[in-house]
Amino acid sequence: MGNKIRIFGFGGSFRKGSYTKALLHAAKELVPEDAELEIFDIGGIPLFNQDLEKNMPAEVRRFKDGIKAADAVLISTPEYNYSVPGFLKNAIDWASRPYNDNSFEDKPVAVMSGSGGTFGGSRAQYHLRQMMVFLNAHMINKPEVIVTFINEKVSPEGVVTDQKTREKIKEMLEALVSWTNRLGRR
Amino acid sequence: MGNKIRIFGFGGSFRKGSYTKALLHAAKELVPEDAELEIFDIGGIPLFNQDLEKNMPAEVRRFKDGIKAADAVLISTPEYNYSVPGFLKNAIDWASRPYNDNSFEDKPVAVMSGSGGTFGGSRAQYHLRQMMVFLNAHMINKPEVIVTFINEKVSPEGVVTDQKTREKIKEMLEALVSWTNRLGRR
Amino acid sequence: MGNKIRIFGFGGSFRKGSYTKALLHAAKELVPEDAELEIFDIGGIPLFNQDLEKNMPAEVRRFKDGIKAADAVLISTPEYNYSVPGFLKNAIDWASRPYNDNSFEDKPVAVMSGSGGTFGGSRAQYHLRQMMVFLNAHMINKPEVIVTFINEKVSPEGVVTDQKTREKIKEMLEALVSWTNRLGRR
Amino acid sequence: MGNKIRIFGFGGSFRKGSYTKALLHAAKELVPEDAELEIFDIGGIPLFNQDLEKNMPAEVRRFKDGIKAADAVLISTPEYNYSVPGFLKNAIDWASRPYNDNSFEDKPVAVMSGSGGTFGGSRAQYHLRQMMVFLNAHMINKPEVIVTFINEKVSPEGVVTDQKTREKIKEMLEALVSWTNRLGRR
Repeated sequence: MGNKIRIFGFGGSFRKGSYTKALLHAAKELVPEDAELEIFDIGGIPLFNQDLEKNMPAEVRRFKDGIKAADAVLISTPEYNYSVPGFLKNAIDWASRPYNDNSFEDKPVAVMSGSGGTFGGSRAQYHLRQMMVFLNAHMINKPEVIVTFINEKVSPEGVVTDQKTREKIKEMLEALVSWTNRLGRR
Repeated sequence: MGNKIRIFGFGGSFRKGSYTKALLHAAKELVPEDAELEIFDIGGIPLFNQDLEKNMPAEVRRFKDGIKAADAVLISTPEYNYSVPGFLKNAIDWASRPYNDNSFEDKPVAVMSGSGGTFGGSRAQYHLRQMMVFLNAHMINKPEVIVTFINEKVSPEGVVTDQKTREKIKEMLEALVSWTNRLGRR
Repeated sequence: MGNKIRIFGFGGSFRKGSYTKALLHAAKELVPEDAELEIFDIGGIPLFNQDLEKNMPAEVRRFKDGIKAADAVLISTPEYNYSVPGFLKNAIDWASRPYNDNSFEDKPVAVMSGSGGTFGGSRAQYHLRQMMVFLNAHMINKPEVIVTFINEKVSPEGVVTDQKTREKIKEMLEALVSWTNRLGRR
Repeated sequence: MGNKIRIFGFGGSFRKGSYTKALLHAAKELVPEDAELEIFDIGGIPLFNQDLEKNMPAEVRRFKDGIKAADAVLISTPEYNYSVPGFLKNAIDWASRPYNDNSFEDKPVAVMSGSGGTFGGSRAQYHLRQMMVFLNAHMINKPEVIVTFINEKVSPEGVVTDQKTREKIKEMLEALVSWTNRLGRR
């Protein structure tokens, strides 16, 4: 058990019945045998304020510690206004601070996105990738999990029912585990 | 008076002595005679939650109404993790919602950024520009106000002391007013 | 006739039966009555070399003059490696040079893209938009013509047969003409 | 000797006295002892044409073989119109084709850029990074070699004279070699 690759997952939207939260829950079911996925709810993370860095809120501390203790990170993002939602960017901003305590340092990272329309949140993914250059995380390139028409692929109960989407998520998790092993756990 | 071009400015960081707030205050001093600049503090805007759209918080309502009543918008942004800070993206997300109440629709927009290092927040500006495509705002292209080594250009009292920076801000405001007139007030 | 809005169109791929050339030809059919579209084939434009700027090849001169004489510009682009193809970027590089002879200066611009897969070349469009900031062109935001599964929407003879795509192209041309009128011809 | 990490470098501009070619030459001097750098001149690579893929020009073949035989790749790029120059994107397009012969597949990659102004070509670097996602190359994140005011840092003979720039290039090469070893040679 202790030897399993630990993946720390977060993201999703704050909406009830969030589709991108459903992607995280599907990932939890589909995680390879030699790995485990913990899902963290970022709903309790307050707005970033640099003046509070020295008295970091407990929920932020938990978030940062979760990322740091993990072997790999999985982010699930909707797309708001052709980019990452503010609430998710806000959590990432906390994770990066203070400057000498970047939780993402050297972490293997994968990303999933989804949207109701044709594009599946891909624009948000490339913005996220640029953030990860600064954070010195190492993202897998393939497969890209970009779920178009996600409203047709998730049940009212929040279960990802589309088989192709499930297979793609599984393939992505396998790639993330393989990438994590290749980079070596630190 | 009533015929002046009304510019609605926001952004800055939440930090005490924020440099990008100093840029907004410099802009207020440097605004052309035929225009006026109102600065809005986004510090009171809560995290976006789609479930609250129908009972929009009063501060969000004020923010949205301010943008809509203005002839043009000025955004001042620091760069966090090679992109727009979460708190600023969060305010933009509110402004865009609900889908039939996009406050930025057809607005002329200009952006300023600054950072302590060599790059002056330019990476955040291009992410912001991509957001504005979705929001159907019309951004000026030039001059780009990208303030490098901003810590050397703002006094401890929050005054932009660097003459070249002040001139560039003035030039940008003139371009924004001219662009607003060219597009025609709606 | 001479009062029609003149649109200068180019792009497409060099492939026989290029889909993005088909988009340009559809645009020529669908152009509004008060406008006309000239299609320019960039196949004869050589690789850019700054040392040749002073003796600009005739074909480059024709390209630059075509853009400058037009009231608006329409670019059709495939997506190569998640960006604008090299051959198209190369033509844009020529158009931008020398530094005091930027053909795109103050031009209204629209872009169309297409690809065989799910994404329709959208990634190339956002890179193109960043180039246009430098070039001080003014791009329309909407509608975005991003043609997914383009191979199913163009006949072997190079005719765009998909009705929704044709309508979107028409709508985009109307938006470009309206934007050009709004900005005022220079 | 045969055990050295082989780095394949290319890019630069076609201009006589190209500054970004000077960066490649500095890299050749500064390469770590356990590595070697071959510089390839992409000046002979013609414009990409998909119809010629089956009869690939000899110079393109040499370029693709050079990348494939190498353990790592180093790209030096100027910035044209806020992106990668067309001639460099064109070479990358050839390297990616045909679809089942992507020369960059699984390669460790580093990038350097430079410009005469304040920004040092950073905008081109982020566009290049997006291309490398599609190409499934693995880029180092740090250090970023972004040479501002490059004209003051290169002698008329094409030698990088600025000590800080030389140190940064050295540091980047060490990071690339270390990253290549970490990923394991294939």
